[in-house]
Amino acid sequence: MATKYTLLYHPGTPGRGEFIRLALEAAQVPYSDPANASKEGAKEVYSLLGENVTYDAEGNPPPFAPPMMKIAGAGKKGGDLLLSQTPNILLYLGPKLGLSGEDEADVFFVNELTLTALDLCNETHDTHHPIAVMKYYEEQKEEALRRSKDFRESRIPKFLGYFERTLKGNKAGTGKYLVGSKLTYADTTLWHVVDGLYFAFPKEMEARKADFPVVLQDFYEGLKEETGIKAYLASGRRMKFSMCMFRHYPELDRQ
Amino acid sequence: MATKYTLLYHPGTPGRGEFIRLALEAAQVPYSDPANASKEGAKEVYSLLGENVTYDAEGNPPPFAPPMMKIAGAGKKGGDLLLSQTPNILLYLGPKLGLSGEDEADVFFVNELTLTALDLCNETHDTHHPIAVMKYYEEQKEEALRRSKDFRESRIPKFLGYFERTLKGNKAGTGKYLVGSKLTYADTTLWHVVDGLYFAFPKEMEARKADFPVVLQDFYEGLKEETGIKAYLASGRRMKFSMCMFRHYPELDRQ
Repeated sequence: MATKYTLLYHPGTPGRGEFIRLALEAAQVPYSDPANASKEGAKEVYSLLGENVTYDAEGNPPPFAPPMMKIAGAGKKGGDLLLSQTPNILLYLGPKLGLSGEDEADVFFVNELTLTALDLCNETHDTHHPIAVMKYYEEQKEEALRRSKDFRESRIPKFLGYFERTLKGNKAGTGKYLVGSKLTYADTTLWHVVDGLYFAFPKEMEARKADFPVVLQDFYEGLKEETGIKAYLASGRRMKFSMCMFRHYPELDRQ
Repeated sequence: MATKYTLLYHPGTPGRGEFIRLALEAAQVPYSDPANASKEGAKEVYSLLGENVTYDAEGNPPPFAPPMMKIAGAGKKGGDLLLSQTPNILLYLGPKLGLSGEDEADVFFVNELTLTALDLCNETHDTHHPIAVMKYYEEQKEEALRRSKDFRESRIPKFLGYFERTLKGNKAGTGKYLVGSKLTYADTTLWHVVDGLYFAFPKEMEARKADFPVVLQDFYEGLKEETGIKAYLASGRRMKFSMCMFRHYPELDRQ
């Protein structure tokens, strides 16, 4: 199937690509995900990341890392537009998918809250990789134990507390939406981070449920009922967490 | 002086506020910086960050952390628009300051490259705070030594190599601009990160000069000659690096 939107990401893991998938699924807009379709597709992803890759013939700068998104016919010369950086891809898709809120101010609020949710995602990654992204977890386990303790005790409550009061303060959102009265990609992004935290730190998150009832109940459970997301969750197409930013090492969780 | 743009950031340090200042200075657009003007101004910054702060009366969501920017009269109800998250503030300012490139594709390229430069900034911060942002450096010095080694040996060359080939591949930019043929806020952002790296890791950066001549010579030195930046650097108004994301601990540098 020829689609307008092609997601280019590592195969076999939700990873950061999932933030893009969730937005497209929420809007029920078709997309291709070639790395998960064939070995050739994965080659396409990695061919964009070579050490000699620079601006392409269509005027797109090189991507630093996946996810990338190719948008057919939207480039400078009528060719493909190639975007990278998760929040940048979401910023582009937002208005096209009807997930950017209701006016210009909302576009910036949605971007702002998305960036904050992605900061929490990055900090979650660093709990198991506090020293070097390219070294094994086992080579930095002592540091990971120390960083995870601070993450659980200080950072999870700081971020969840922030989103709790953001949700509470947006009266139009009834605890279900961060901005305005309808779904945006800030919601799908925060939802995936919370879902990843439940996978990575199940005991910690269970213990936090009473502290943050709006974000962990009204918001988190409510989003599963959105039409596009409900269909996606029921489809079996959503990949399971394994070894991406969200990893479950029992020793890093609350004991 | 009543200005349209008010930057709200911690007083006394360039910090992440400097990315916003540089864009405004490059465009020679006036702005207020109240935390650096008076104690009352600093109180305004911290009043926005209280643990009970939520959506304000003008419909702005709460900021998670500085920098914030208040734009007079641009809010939902004709009041103040309040934005946070560094790349989000830059995204808003970009078109207004003429620093977003030449067309819609450029807006996303500039945002993408800015996000990547800010990722490098975050990784620089984590060299001295690899375990816990709220703990002293001295409490995580062993881990900082280990993380800095990886940062110098793997991450600095990965990021600088990426920007080197981006600059080289943008023929219209003559090694001086990341996107197109004129200055954008991606340039001012990357420039500040490189400047911070020279402060934090002077020996490492000196040793890297030959590896990355475009980014460390053509680009880094060239930007200092842009009219607005040249005036800012000569003004004495630019704060010195001290204890923000960019810190100089000699033991973390190349030995």
